[in-house]
Amino acid sequence: MIVTVTLNAALDITYRVPRLRPAAEHRVAETAERPGGKGLNVARVLGALGHRAVVAGFAGGPVGAVLHELLGDSPGGGLVEDALTPIAGNSRRTLGVVDTGSGNTTQLNEAGPYVTPDEWDAFLGTYTGLLADASAVALCGSLPPGLAVGSYASLVRAAQAADVPVLLDTGGEPLRRGIAARPDLVKPNAEELAGLTGFTEPVRAAREARRRGARAVAASLGPDGMLVSTADGGWQAAPPERLRGNPTGAGDSAVAGLLSALVEGLPWPDRLARAVALSAATVLAPAAGEFDQEAYEALLPRVAVTERVVG
Amino acid sequence: MIVTVTLNAALDITYRVPRLRPAAEHRVAETAERPGGKGLNVARVLGALGHRAVVAGFAGGPVGAVLHELLGDSPGGGLVEDALTPIAGNSRRTLGVVDTGSGNTTQLNEAGPYVTPDEWDAFLGTYTGLLADASAVALCGSLPPGLAVGSYASLVRAAQAADVPVLLDTGGEPLRRGIAARPDLVKPNAEELAGLTGFTEPVRAAREARRRGARAVAASLGPDGMLVSTADGGWQAAPPERLRGNPTGAGDSAVAGLLSALVEGLPWPDRLARAVALSAATVLAPAAGEFDQEAYEALLPRVAVTERVVG
Repeated sequence: MIVTVTLNAALDITYRVPRLRPAAEHRVAETAERPGGKGLNVARVLGALGHRAVVAGFAGGPVGAVLHELLGDSPGGGLVEDALTPIAGNSRRTLGVVDTGSGNTTQLNEAGPYVTPDEWDAFLGTYTGLLADASAVALCGSLPPGLAVGSYASLVRAAQAADVPVLLDTGGEPLRRGIAARPDLVKPNAEELAGLTGFTEPVRAAREARRRGARAVAASLGPDGMLVSTADGGWQAAPPERLRGNPTGAGDSAVAGLLSALVEGLPWPDRLARAVALSAATVLAPAAGEFDQEAYEALLPRVAVTERVVG
Repeated sequence: MIVTVTLNAALDITYRVPRLRPAAEHRVAETAERPGGKGLNVARVLGALGHRAVVAGFAGGPVGAVLHELLGDSPGGGLVEDALTPIAGNSRRTLGVVDTGSGNTTQLNEAGPYVTPDEWDAFLGTYTGLLADASAVALCGSLPPGLAVGSYASLVRAAQAADVPVLLDTGGEPLRRGIAARPDLVKPNAEELAGLTGFTEPVRAAREARRRGARAVAASLGPDGMLVSTADGGWQAAPPERLRGNPTGAGDSAVAGLLSALVEGLPWPDRLARAVALSAATVLAPAAGEFDQEAYEALLPRVAVTERVVG
């Protein structure tokens, strides 16, 4: 089983309006809700790929209750297992207001609930218990208020102590601290990687991230696909053509691709091809954050993986 | 006890952001939630004025559960009693995004849950039960999907059968139908009154609304205060000076003023003065939809009521 950790899980709400005009009153034509936060998205894709995924993290209050309920209804067909730790605070919402005229989305993200030290301890108990049966773990997204900036570093070390491969997908200071704990893989985007290392050239920045502790770096480069830098070599892959669609969740699909292929024992080039094809199939899907299974299967054999000298 | 009916109750959510930019991503700096929908606002003001208020209408789903919880915590100090009828659908949310730079609010209102015929029947049972003890009833706001456009007309007739004075505050076709059932008072704003009657001049429009069935009309005229037109005469009153502030909820405070003064047996000019002072004290309050008790007490003796020939 694969564990995904989402410390700041969210209820993703989407409103559709014909045109968003600041300072005006709008009647919302269409409302949708789904469990959100990077780790929950990763788990959903893992479930759709046939892997058993368990989600850990925090959920509380009325919004948390909706999260639990929606996880139970997941289209993954019971493949996503809910192990979120209860908290007193109310889980956060993220709201995407889609202007159906222009296609633009205005995003409003709540900060998230305060997590107490006791709640963190309860989570740690669940997390270490899950590690005993885990084939891999993904640590995803931002930290909610109350958690120490080094929280991900602790979780990386616990995974290593349990001999479970660990992927870290976050940004800023939590990424900097987490990398120092030597995770097996980090998956920053180009901007996060530049922020971390000070280098804008991805090959150089990835090398620097490895020097700082990451055993491997998978850098998502937007439309240019993904670059992988490891001690055994480097590879890059891109979708076979330019894609038009919604990039929401494409990075989370890439994480699910990397992780599922790792667990299946596939070599790096195959892991990378899967990540890029899944990511592309997510951009092409009509609903934000879902992936198009047919597009994925059609794209996978068409993703060209090139070897790169990464030093 | 005064009954207020809110058929489309809402959870009013407020987000504060430094600047709202369409198509951008925002971190919400501050979130607030309170029970909303006109009748719930009216009940809260009635409670603060020392009247016992019971709220009837619908609440369901996770959002309805939050509504019930917040009503229990009302600052009215237990003066607002929750008699909302349970429904299978999820109560609606309204979101106000306050741009703290400009002070502007962008409003996004969900349509509301579908109400089934059985749920409407259950509500009618509660409503007629409450009428037995009611000194007055206010019917407020829009209709949720599923309810017949003549729903308010039925509720007006039930109040009359129980000999309870009834105030109707809605717009469009539900107002047109409701007026024909001869409510004791309607409280349209100038725009609703013009839409109903075809006359833009308030005195003439109010007279026409009475001809169509309303026993009395209290037309809110924004900064110009309020005009009352009854079979016994007409009056107009305005705040003593121009007000700067947030007009959200000012109309609901006016309804609470009219209704509480009616129940206390005050004559029309005193009812009108109270409505105008409460409305002004709501515009002046720092939080949207609340009223400033001190400002209310200071304004009340300064509201000048003038007799108007209303024909």
